[in-house]
Amino acid sequence: MVPIVSIVGKSGSGKTTLLEKVIAELTRRGYTVGVIKHDAHGFEIDHEGKDSWRHKNAGARTVALSSPEKFAVIKEVSPEWPPERIIASYLSDVDVVVTEGFKKSAFPKIEVVRKANSTRPVCGNDKRLMAFAADFKVSNKFPVFKLEDYKGVATLIEKEIITKHKAAGISLIVDGQKIELKPFIENLIKDGVTGMIKSLKGCSGAKEIELRIRQAEPVVRVTSRKK
Amino acid sequence: MVPIVSIVGKSGSGKTTLLEKVIAELTRRGYTVGVIKHDAHGFEIDHEGKDSWRHKNAGARTVALSSPEKFAVIKEVSPEWPPERIIASYLSDVDVVVTEGFKKSAFPKIEVVRKANSTRPVCGNDKRLMAFAADFKVSNKFPVFKLEDYKGVATLIEKEIITKHKAAGISLIVDGQKIELKPFIENLIKDGVTGMIKSLKGCSGAKEIELRIRQAEPVVRVTSRKK
Repeated sequence: MVPIVSIVGKSGSGKTTLLEKVIAELTRRGYTVGVIKHDAHGFEIDHEGKDSWRHKNAGARTVALSSPEKFAVIKEVSPEWPPERIIASYLSDVDVVVTEGFKKSAFPKIEVVRKANSTRPVCGNDKRLMAFAADFKVSNKFPVFKLEDYKGVATLIEKEIITKHKAAGISLIVDGQKIELKPFIENLIKDGVTGMIKSLKGCSGAKEIELRIRQAEPVVRVTSRKK
Repeated sequence: MVPIVSIVGKSGSGKTTLLEKVIAELTRRGYTVGVIKHDAHGFEIDHEGKDSWRHKNAGARTVALSSPEKFAVIKEVSPEWPPERIIASYLSDVDVVVTEGFKKSAFPKIEVVRKANSTRPVCGNDKRLMAFAADFKVSNKFPVFKLEDYKGVATLIEKEIITKHKAAGISLIVDGQKIELKPFIENLIKDGVTGMIKSLKGCSGAKEIELRIRQAEPVVRVTSRKK
């Protein structure tokens, strides 16, 4: 539902630096931005010995930290959640999500290429490639922004990604799977549910509705006893 | 919707250690456990200079990290989100949430008291206090578990919190506010939406439904230009 664009490129090309500047520029232009960074090698955010690490190590599936300014949620998953699912569940309240490093995804992409690092792009034949950001003329086929032209990249994202996306819509996840809906069904569900909710006290102006339903079932206990 | 219990107590009483053992014990008994730790003084999870720090510092509202085994989401909020909202949005898939440190919340509570630390409990008059875990007879009014009796505490949570909670139910958040529903309305929405969703291809056995609806509205741009 939230529009997505991915910044891709070889390790060391300068993805993070460009992304940082593009985030700042889009934020300056009034958009709220979410980011997902993909790290195939894993990351350490809850360090050994810290409370969050201890709780997760004890078996907690999800550990959250809450403070007056921010909160963090760390969740064990297996297999890896696709970015679409992370976005639907955790980043649905931003105007645009910029991802870093999902080079095999089906998201529209901007590839960063830096001559001193490598002259061969990784997504040159990707159908979703929109442009390059490079310090040389890496392609004749695609627009090539200068590496430092974060404003140009931000404008491309603004025009092609943010304003073209459908601001309204619904996201439906059933038992952890995202369900694709045809427009007719989407409208049926949207209008039906919105109609129900808007008639509730205090909800007549509802702009964003989140509904979770869990069917009754006995809590399954897997008991293991030592003999 | 997910049942909640809070481990409270003065700083240094041993909350984290007890919580760690209770999590491990509940996990051993087959439950999935989520944790929220409250830190009034803030926490540092994304360290200066790290990519996630750089992105958030550049203005990203929400930053996620994804790897094959886990993901993490860090979100700026102001004012602080109540734990109920964090749970409804981010921890709805566990059997029980154990929180640490929300001593002013309305959750059922277990207070940890350690003589060498302090002999005066902080929640002695709290209506939601269920029990103490202490190394002395801190109360005649409430059950007192020994500090090391994490199995007893786990059994209390299992009996009084997990099995008593309503396994089925719905959670509705409209424009960021949790909406309390009367049972009749809750059933009306639950049955209406479940009926719609179950008729979709592949959804007939739906046990857990997550639906998000965003109404159409133009993306608002706050443009600031330097003169």
